[in-house]
Formats: sequence, C-alpha cells, structure tokens
Amino acid sequence: MQKFRKVGLVARMDSPLVLESLKRVEVFLRSQSVDVVLEDLAREVLKGTDLAFCSQEEMGSRCDLVIAVGGDGNILGAARTLAPYGVPLLGINRGRLGFLADVSPDEIELRIGEVLAGHYSIEEHFLLEGEVGEKHQITSALNEVVLHSASMAKMVEFDLYVNDDFVYKQNSDGLIVSSPTGSTAYALSAGGPIMHPSLDAMVLIPMFPHTLNSRPLVVRGDSELKIVVSPQLDGFARVSFDSHQEFEVQPGESIVIRKNQHKLKLIHPPGHSFYSVCRSKLDWASRVGD
Amino acid sequence: MQKFRKVGLVARMDSPLVLESLKRVEVFLRSQSVDVVLEDLAREVLKGTDLAFCSQEEMGSRCDLVIAVGGDGNILGAARTLAPYGVPLLGINRGRLGFLADVSPDEIELRIGEVLAGHYSIEEHFLLEGEVGEKHQITSALNEVVLHSASMAKMVEFDLYVNDDFVYKQNSDGLIVSSPTGSTAYALSAGGPIMHPSLDAMVLIPMFPHTLNSRPLVVRGDSELKIVVSPQLDGFARVSFDSHQEFEVQPGESIVIRKNQHKLKLIHPPGHSFYSVCRSKLDWASRVGD
Amino acid sequence: MQKFRKVGLVARMDSPLVLESLKRVEVFLRSQSVDVVLEDLAREVLKGTDLAFCSQEEMGSRCDLVIAVGGDGNILGAARTLAPYGVPLLGINRGRLGFLADVSPDEIELRIGEVLAGHYSIEEHFLLEGEVGEKHQITSALNEVVLHSASMAKMVEFDLYVNDDFVYKQNSDGLIVSSPTGSTAYALSAGGPIMHPSLDAMVLIPMFPHTLNSRPLVVRGDSELKIVVSPQLDGFARVSFDSHQEFEVQPGESIVIRKNQHKLKLIHPPGHSFYSVCRSKLDWASRVGD
Amino acid sequence: MQKFRKVGLVARMDSPLVLESLKRVEVFLRSQSVDVVLEDLAREVLKGTDLAFCSQEEMGSRCDLVIAVGGDGNILGAARTLAPYGVPLLGINRGRLGFLADVSPDEIELRIGEVLAGHYSIEEHFLLEGEVGEKHQITSALNEVVLHSASMAKMVEFDLYVNDDFVYKQNSDGLIVSSPTGSTAYALSAGGPIMHPSLDAMVLIPMFPHTLNSRPLVVRGDSELKIVVSPQLDGFARVSFDSHQEFEVQPGESIVIRKNQHKLKLIHPPGHSFYSVCRSKLDWASRVGD
Repeated sequence: MQKFRKVGLVARMDSPLVLESLKRVEVFLRSQSVDVVLEDLAREVLKGTDLAFCSQEEMGSRCDLVIAVGGDGNILGAARTLAPYGVPLLGINRGRLGFLADVSPDEIELRIGEVLAGHYSIEEHFLLEGEVGEKHQITSALNEVVLHSASMAKMVEFDLYVNDDFVYKQNSDGLIVSSPTGSTAYALSAGGPIMHPSLDAMVLIPMFPHTLNSRPLVVRGDSELKIVVSPQLDGFARVSFDSHQEFEVQPGESIVIRKNQHKLKLIHPPGHSFYSVCRSKLDWASRVGD
Repeated sequence: MQKFRKVGLVARMDSPLVLESLKRVEVFLRSQSVDVVLEDLAREVLKGTDLAFCSQEEMGSRCDLVIAVGGDGNILGAARTLAPYGVPLLGINRGRLGFLADVSPDEIELRIGEVLAGHYSIEEHFLLEGEVGEKHQITSALNEVVLHSASMAKMVEFDLYVNDDFVYKQNSDGLIVSSPTGSTAYALSAGGPIMHPSLDAMVLIPMFPHTLNSRPLVVRGDSELKIVVSPQLDGFARVSFDSHQEFEVQPGESIVIRKNQHKLKLIHPPGHSFYSVCRSKLDWASRVGD
Repeated sequence: MQKFRKVGLVARMDSPLVLESLKRVEVFLRSQSVDVVLEDLAREVLKGTDLAFCSQEEMGSRCDLVIAVGGDGNILGAARTLAPYGVPLLGINRGRLGFLADVSPDEIELRIGEVLAGHYSIEEHFLLEGEVGEKHQITSALNEVVLHSASMAKMVEFDLYVNDDFVYKQNSDGLIVSSPTGSTAYALSAGGPIMHPSLDAMVLIPMFPHTLNSRPLVVRGDSELKIVVSPQLDGFARVSFDSHQEFEVQPGESIVIRKNQHKLKLIHPPGHSFYSVCRSKLDWASRVGD
Repeated sequence: MQKFRKVGLVARMDSPLVLESLKRVEVFLRSQSVDVVLEDLAREVLKGTDLAFCSQEEMGSRCDLVIAVGGDGNILGAARTLAPYGVPLLGINRGRLGFLADVSPDEIELRIGEVLAGHYSIEEHFLLEGEVGEKHQITSALNEVVLHSASMAKMVEFDLYVNDDFVYKQNSDGLIVSSPTGSTAYALSAGGPIMHPSLDAMVLIPMFPHTLNSRPLVVRGDSELKIVVSPQLDGFARVSFDSHQEFEVQPGESIVIRKNQHKLKLIHPPGHSFYSVCRSKLDWASRVGD
C-alpha cells in the first residue's frame, strides 16, 4: 500500500463542528510528520495561523491524499475536481456515517492512523460525463445527471437512445441517469434500485412519466446514452449535474451521457462494508408491525 | 331531468380540429332551437359571423349548460370558473375519450341530442381550495394542489397537519394533494392510487421523498390539511393549482387545503362508465408476456 | 361515557410476557371492583386459580368491555368474534404500540384506570365480509381479504366488477382487498396507500400483476365487489381472510366482498393519534442521507 | 458465421398453431437440405411420418442448432437443457414477438433462411445456478430463482449474504433473484428494474417485505448469494427455479445462488433490437392522457 506524505484538507466551512473536526485532523496529521495543505476557502476562517493553503486543483497535483471533512455532499464536489488527478480521497463525516464519508469524527486519530500505516482499501467510483447541446459543454457528475423540465407546469418530451439504438419517446417531468454511487442518493428517492458501487452500470429512471408502464432501466457502464429533447418543446429544459451545475437545453438539442475516463479513488479504513452503511443509512434494521 | 335551453361553448382555440368540432356543435345546437353563446376568446377566430360572445363568468350566470370542446385539460379551467355558478358541463374530446370529456367528435349530434332529450347522468366532482401564505390568497383546483421546491437543486422541508393533528416532517421535492378527479392525472404518474370519482377523499403523495418509508396517504374529503414550510428553508417554495396558477411560499408560511364548497357538475351521456374510461386511457387491456 | 362493570380478557398464551401482562390487568381490574372473566383458552395456563372462564362468544353477550393482551395480530381474531355483539375492545400491546393495541404494558394501571373512569374515545373500524363460491360461505375480515393462486408457479386470472360495473380482467399472483384498518398491514407491504381509519373506503391492490399499468384502486366503502375466477383456471385459487381462514375457489366461482354490517368498536385512552402510531410503527422519523 | 447442417426442433405440443408452425419449419429446413430431428415429446402427435426423434439432451450433443417453437415460456426449459452443450437456440413465437422467441410465424422461411445463410447475431444469456439445502441439490434457471413461503398466511424470515458480506435480515413473502434475462419476466411484475440482456448483473427483489425501506438491489454477475432461512421458521419455505422446478427448504437451511458456467446462446435474425421488443411487449408506445 502507498504511504501518504502530503495531505490536502477540504471542508465545507458551514458549521463549528466541521471546523472542530478539521482542526483535529490537521493537528493529528502534523503529529505524524505529514505535510498538510488546506483548501483556499478555509483561509478566511482559519486566518492568523501558520497553515498553507491552495486550491482543490493544486491539491490534485501536489498531494498524494486528500481528506474531505463534512459528509457525502461535500465529497461530491471534491470528487469531480480531484478525479482527473488520480489522487485518493478519504471522507470524515459530521453525523452518522455516509456512503462516501465513512470515518466518524470521534475516530479521527484511530482511522487516519490506520490509513497512514497502510491499512486501507481503495474503492473506485466511476464518474458520469455529460455533453450538453450544440455548444458541447462537458461536465461530470459522481452521482447523477438529471434532465428535467424548466417549470412544474410543463413536462419535457424527449427521445432516448442507448448506443444509437432507439429506446423510447417519453413525456415526463424528466429523466435521472445515475451511476452506482448515485443509486443511494436522489435516484433512490425516485424509485431506482440500489446498485453495488463496484457494478459497471448506469440506471435510467423516468421522473413521474406520463405512461404507467415505464420502469427503471439498467444498462452497461460502457453504454453511450443520447437524450434528444423534442424540437416541439415549448420553452427549454434543464440538465443538472449532481445538483451542483445546471445548463439550459433548447428544443431539439441533445445530451450525450457516458462514463468519464477518470475515477474517484475512495479510501476506506479496514472493516468498511457497503451493506453495513446501507443498514445504517436506510434503516434496514427497522421493522413494521410486531 | 332538466332540459337545456341556453348553452355556452368554451374551447381552447389551438387546433383546426377543435374549431371544426366547435362549429359542428354550434350548428347542431341551433338546429335544435337552443340559444348558443361562445366564449370571448373565440371572438377573434370566429369573427364575421353572427354569433354571440361572453366571458366564462357570464356563461355561469346566463347559461343552463356549458359544453367544452378540446379535452380534459380544457375542462380544468372551465370547471374552476363555472363550479360556483352550479351550471353543468359537458365535454367533447378531440382524441380518444378522456375522464372528463367523454363525447367523441364523431358522435357530437348523437350524444348532444341525447343530452338535450334529457338522457344523461350528472357526476359531481368536488374541487380543492387552497389558502396560501400570509396574504391568504385563495384559489381552487379540480385535480391537484402541488407544493414543490423552486429549483431542482433544492428540496423543500415542511410539516404536515391533518385537522391540526401532526402527521410528519418531510424533506422531498414536494407534496401532491389530489382530489379523486386528479387521481388519474399527475397524482397517478407520481405513484398515487386511482380513486373512484364518487369517493369523498383526498390523497397526499410525497414527491421523491428523502426517506424510503413514505407512502401515499388517503384522508377523508372533509379533512383540513395544513402544510407549514420550514422557517429554515433556503429561498422559497411554490404551490401550484392544476398546473395553471402558481404562488410563491416563503419560509415559515403555510398552505391550508380543504374541499371547496362548490362542485363541478359533469354531464355524461348514457352508458358512461368510469372503469371503461380507465381501460381505454390506462391501457388496462394491454398485456405483458405471452 | 359508558362505565364498564364486566370485563372479558383475551390473550394469545404464547409468551411469559403476555401472561405477566394478563395477570397485571386482572389484578388491577379486581382492585377496581370490576367483574373479570377470562377466555377459555387461558384455562389450562391459569388453572388452580379462582378465575371465571368463558368463550369469546359468551364474552360478547355477557361483557361490556373486552381487553385483548398481545398485539395487533391478537386483536384481529377477537374483533371478528366480538363485532357482532357491539362490545368495545381495548388492546394491550407486548412490544411497541400497535395500530389496534395502543396501551403499553408498563402503563396498564394508568390507562385502564382512565378508561374505567370514562376517559376514552371510541374509534369504529368496519369489517369486510366475503361470500365465497357456490356454497356461499360467508366470513369476515378486519384487515383484508386476499385472493391468490394456490401455487407459486401459477398465476390466477379473474374478472373484477365493482357494483356490477366491469373493471378489468387481470392475470396476477392475486388481489388484496383491504379495509382502512388493513391498509397499514399486508396491503402496505404490497404497495397500497395508507388510509385513515375513519375513511369509508376499500382499496384493491393487484399482487405482482402481469401488466405494468395496474395500480391500487380506492372505492367507496359501500361498494360491492365481485371477483370471478376464470373458468379456464388450471387447478384452483384460494381466498384468505386476515390470513386466518382460507377457502378454495374453483374455476368459474366468484367471491363477493362488501362491508360487514358490524363494526369493531376500538377503545383508545386519551391522547391517541393515528399519525403518532404511524410515525412510531413506520419509522417516519428516520431519514436517509445527511 | 457458422453454417447449420443438423437442426433439432422442440415445441410445446399444446396448440394446433404450434403444430402448424412446427411443420412449416420442418418442411422449410428439409427443402434447404438440412438434417432435422424432432423432440421425443412430438413423437405421439406426429406419428406415422418418416421423421427422426430424440431427447433434448441428445439434440444438445448431435445438433448444431435447435429451433424452439412456441414462445418465451417454451424456451426456458430448452435453454436449461441445452446450455451445457453450447448449442445455439432460435425461437419461433406463436403470438407477438417475445424477448427470447423473436421470429414471427409468418416469417418462418424468410428468417430461418437468413440464419441458414449466416446472417444472424448471437446473444449470450447467462443462467443462474442454485444449490439448495443440506442435500446440495443443484438446479439452474434462465430467468429467476424465487424463495417464498410455503403458504399465504406465513412470511419467511431469512438472512442474506453477498460474497459472505451480511446484507440484511428480512421478513417477507419471499425474495426473487433474477438474471438480466428474467428482469422482463416475473421480476418486472414485482417492481424490479429492466436490465439489458448483456449486463453482467443479478437483481434481488423483496416480495412484499415487512419493512417499507426495502428496495431492489443490483449486484455484479460474479457475486455469490447466500440466503439462510431462519432456524425459527415455522414449517418450511420453498425455492423455485423458473417456476418449473421447486424444492422445500427447511428451517436453518441455505440456498446458494451464483452464475452458472454455461450460457444460453440465443440466435437473432438481422435487425433484432432489445428495446424494440420492450416497446412492443411493454406497450411503451401507449400513452396516458391527451
């Protein structure tokens, strides 16, 4: 296993709890003689200290590990930035363990210590890549790409192709294209199946489709999807990536979705189990009835 | 059965087919010595003729029957305007028969003839009424009232009360409150049950809820629902009525939903069956497999 | 409010916990100078005492209150026996509170004391009644009547009529007809909506239907349903009532389902809330995600 | 492409239509100087002719192509028998095209002609293999393996492991484990996603689970599943393969499910499209509403 000598720290600076965990991580790393650099965004909150700062992009090229403090949502952004650099990511959670951030705040020294000692596993998560409209704007998503109508009152009509094979014409509030990683996020609320993170597949989930016989569709991870928005569409549609970035799609324009060539390398301390996180996060232990 | 002497005609003037059916209705009614008045909106399209025109509101007070040409969507608007006047409504459909508009264009003379001869049934459909926010804006809906987030990227958090009894706190894309009439429209796409039009009930359907154990909830028609949008909501939410009218709801504001005192009186020619329309519209005849 | 002077006790004698609660109830009732009679089934377990015993049927005619110890399942049987006598029922639960049995074991004296003092509400739950086949065997159910195929390998084909109006022909593993009371039991697992106990309605839920466009259907409580099993059925089907009683249905035979004229009168101590039980039993408080 | 010289014919002899198609296939094959052998089961129906007969197993070793007449159901059995021999299969359908049998009866000469001329594609479908209980009985399934309770009135409780990783304890009517091929059959009725036939995955679908937060789970095709039936189970459970073969499972026994080493080689004439069959079989063309 690789030993980590230079570690970047990213965090959403929106709560005292995150700040507290961040400092604890920083103190522990220094005590282990590890070089630490913090995300630029933290500069204002942590000013007056002797810390080093840089952008997430610089971390990608300078660090051999990035630790993200704050929860699954926080990791989404870091994953999109860091995946091209191949630098692995470890997540510290604020609350109960997440699917991506699976180190709890009270185990920071124990778990990071294990990882620094080379005791960890690497789980690869592929990203989706979307090419939008005639400008061919390309963006990536770790969880999902969502085509949706621009207003509640209207549906969006589109044609779906998988590897140039026509699938269906659909009228709905939209379509979710999710990676296995995203299958436990928004896609799950929309009625999609849970997919193991190691599965090489994407799932397509119609949002409130106008027909009753639509179902989630699981296709191979190497498929190329093309969604052609109806030329007759009144107004425009939108396509959003991980609910972070959004583009307008004009009538007749297409969105092409495929696997991104880069993968998020997620570090897990020993004992990690996807199903154990499911049981905790999805309350699989809870029961109806007696 | 009441005999109809003064008939108003409303139509969405968006297709030559609708115009053709409208003229056929008008000609037949005159041939039966029935007074006919057309909706103001038709004035431009039908100018140069000797027809009488008035607003939908005037029709409510002057006519003893209104005939709507164009499909279920067209009837939604007319129903909200005419219900307070108690004037019954008959719907002519452009395409295949709808739940509300169940006279087909090629049976115009036959079916309207039957109705004029007193051969018809009246099906009452209650409307929902929503009171929105601190301004207490009141609007009605025949199908559904929908609370939803203002943008894809955000969920809306709210507390739900039924008759002042706390039901749940929910994080989701929104909540659909549907009448039995609306249960075969948007609510059906969202996974709600089909409710017979004569049922005195409303159904509440969470939209992509953040928890997996949310389910549609059916309550008595005389229930008063209160949805309190979280004071911590970032931005605002929206509430829409039949996808026709929409209001902003600010953090901490409430929407109160109850049955409207007025009902749509829908006229059906002899032989109408709700389940027969279901079989046709929902393709209950079609089969999977051999 | 009625004061209760003669109380019957029923219990499923399958656990020491139930026995302990049963004795505690009996001791408390006697301390309040209430006459107590126990179900015959308890005779063997409690022999050697000076207790009075009788059948559930006798309780119906002799008691003015029956207390059931053991959970929702236990109450189902007592409800079917006691409903015709109009005697109200109070349920003591072993574990966490149920929809029907909502007194917890550690509050026995407090809650029964309140009820004896006249502080309670009565919630009426209607029963379903099924008439099966050419022998017209009539049985009742508090939760649900289920038509299902006799073996996994086969589907059952049937025609459904509501008030003699044809609804659909269906090929499926079966059909669940549930009362509002049953809507939080088996029907919920099968994808049905939750119905408030006071709603006058039944819900019909297809079990693994062969077509993708089948949906739960909610009809008025005064509807008469007729399910006609296909004359071409290979073998026979089964119909079960509350999963307690089961009949064979031969090809071509019918099941007629309607509301039973009797209702279960369920006693609730002060402060009972249906939605509060939902939140507890259905884990509506639990959350996915951060 | 391989040229086929010796062709076996299998058919379910349950309708005159099947017999008619079978003869048409046989006549055409002979006219093309292809050796033909029929399934033993056809011997009685077709006696008096100069045809050759053998078992499906013998076909596996003697033929270089097997043609199955009769529909998807008919192909299930042939697939399980023939997969170990690696002989490809072509399906002629009676009614509208199926997912497996995609030659229509009126195109027999055209399509078989194309295939004999080397114009075809081969689609591989993996089979599931189940090892049941302490006797380690091994059987295969093309569509699905289903664990289910032995009677309506009872649920089955079991623990699920994927690659020895504990997933959950579940109380339900059972569990469906489906291949991609089976995802458009029983699994679809049970709420599972559609999986493209080329996907290397299995889906696990809870049947009427006792908890509301259960969801279909998609795992890699090389996963080994172990279902351990609760030692406390009252009575026994059943496990069925393609609804054709069924075993009892005693309390405490396990079922191990993995991919079978053999694959069905399915022949498609030119122009075959999985999504085109979906559109036809699942009525994706049909619409709700206007």
